[in-house]
Amino acid sequence: MVTESAPDRQEQPPADSQRFALGLEYDGTNYHGWQIQSHAPSIQDCLNRALSAVADETIECVGAGRTDSGVHATGQIAHFDSLADRGLRSWLLGINSNLPEDISVRWVRPVPEDFHARYCAVARGYRYVILNRPIRSALERSRTWWIRQPLNLVGMDAAAGYLLGEHDFSAFRAAACQSHSPVRSIRRLQISQTDDRIIIECEANAFLHHMVRNIVGSLVTVGRGEQEPNWLRQLLDQRDRRVAGMTAPPWALFLTMVQYPAEFDLPGSS
Amino acid sequence: MVTESAPDRQEQPPADSQRFALGLEYDGTNYHGWQIQSHAPSIQDCLNRALSAVADETIECVGAGRTDSGVHATGQIAHFDSLADRGLRSWLLGINSNLPEDISVRWVRPVPEDFHARYCAVARGYRYVILNRPIRSALERSRTWWIRQPLNLVGMDAAAGYLLGEHDFSAFRAAACQSHSPVRSIRRLQISQTDDRIIIECEANAFLHHMVRNIVGSLVTVGRGEQEPNWLRQLLDQRDRRVAGMTAPPWALFLTMVQYPAEFDLPGSS
Repeated sequence: MVTESAPDRQEQPPADSQRFALGLEYDGTNYHGWQIQSHAPSIQDCLNRALSAVADETIECVGAGRTDSGVHATGQIAHFDSLADRGLRSWLLGINSNLPEDISVRWVRPVPEDFHARYCAVARGYRYVILNRPIRSALERSRTWWIRQPLNLVGMDAAAGYLLGEHDFSAFRAAACQSHSPVRSIRRLQISQTDDRIIIECEANAFLHHMVRNIVGSLVTVGRGEQEPNWLRQLLDQRDRRVAGMTAPPWALFLTMVQYPAEFDLPGSS
Repeated sequence: MVTESAPDRQEQPPADSQRFALGLEYDGTNYHGWQIQSHAPSIQDCLNRALSAVADETIECVGAGRTDSGVHATGQIAHFDSLADRGLRSWLLGINSNLPEDISVRWVRPVPEDFHARYCAVARGYRYVILNRPIRSALERSRTWWIRQPLNLVGMDAAAGYLLGEHDFSAFRAAACQSHSPVRSIRRLQISQTDDRIIIECEANAFLHHMVRNIVGSLVTVGRGEQEPNWLRQLLDQRDRRVAGMTAPPWALFLTMVQYPAEFDLPGSS
């Protein structure tokens, strides 16, 4: 989930290779997040294997956002380079037939060599889903955070207002975060309710490690009436993770959107 | 899924027992359907165990609809009798804490002794969900029927019209169906589309074994352009299961509603 604006240190692809971008959907339940790990299954590793099988060469993809263990995606973006001569439809069907059923590629597009899934992204969007009702749900259990007591949406909405714009988000940053700067800019933090589902949509230029889940945890603290809305402003000022709210669980979080400059003309996500 | 209007042959409960109705939600993925089977897990068996644990006596519940293996429910209804003196909140929380996480009880209500979850039901409603897009979905895979080619909704809608009202549904009845009569009355068969999801809502007084899944299979045959809408009328007239469409898969089917006479004043479902 960390994104740096550092220069691209990837090796240059061979001169006759083509760069492609692709849109990914996944159920993160059975994965230790996006990023390749030595002893745990990752989305990136599965995608590399599928791409390499289709291209018949070793391919390593680069993702836009490093989603955490258990986090899902409807709109992850990745890029890869290949020397293989395949039509777009062959790439799409080939990759999907080589991926496990909990990962699917929605589209594949050729992009210029200077496209980079991570460093070219200008914004990311996440959705967090809370199930707010007295009784747990059998059908929604694996994709929502069940909260028994009624949450005060007016308070949560007021609290969210303090986070909009550019701030030092140290209070909402995991200890393990490797980002150089804690400053991020949130352009949208919208809370809506339909029946017993509360949806929190968050868009920013980039996110710190655990930032969305930590923000959701603190908004819920306000929604429960344990803090006033302006507590969020105090948290920003204090820049201390230890005084903020809990980290919301990962299984209710979805990476829904990665935005690039219009020149790349990539499909939107939802 | 079969429901007969036969008289209630249940043994009479003890004079000082109380009858209760409850509303159930479940993810049918890991169960061989509602009904108790000797060597396979069932929803009914799990519920009996939970009820018996809370009441500290052996309880056997009766369900409104015998959902098939893999079929889900948001609005299943069951009843049971107990001598135990528990408040409604104790029943509700106690049952849920004794059920696995893929089954949950939404409400518990006392009902008169002449209430019977199966024989008093005047209507049932099912929802079937089709994902109609070229590429499979990682996140929707376990609760939708993925159909690649675009379906013609106008044709499906016209075909559905032939099934409304009272008919002999032998063409849509599983060979194993034990019902005495193949006549059922469909009061609603509505097809709607939102983005790439096609939802089929079906309400009838009662259903034959596999009836919803067989109807959906034949509607999809029309939606694919392999048959004209009036084929559904021909199927009704022929009363021959072998000439109708395929049986749609179970994992995209939800029992959403069971309706009772207003006098019982039970919560509605969705």
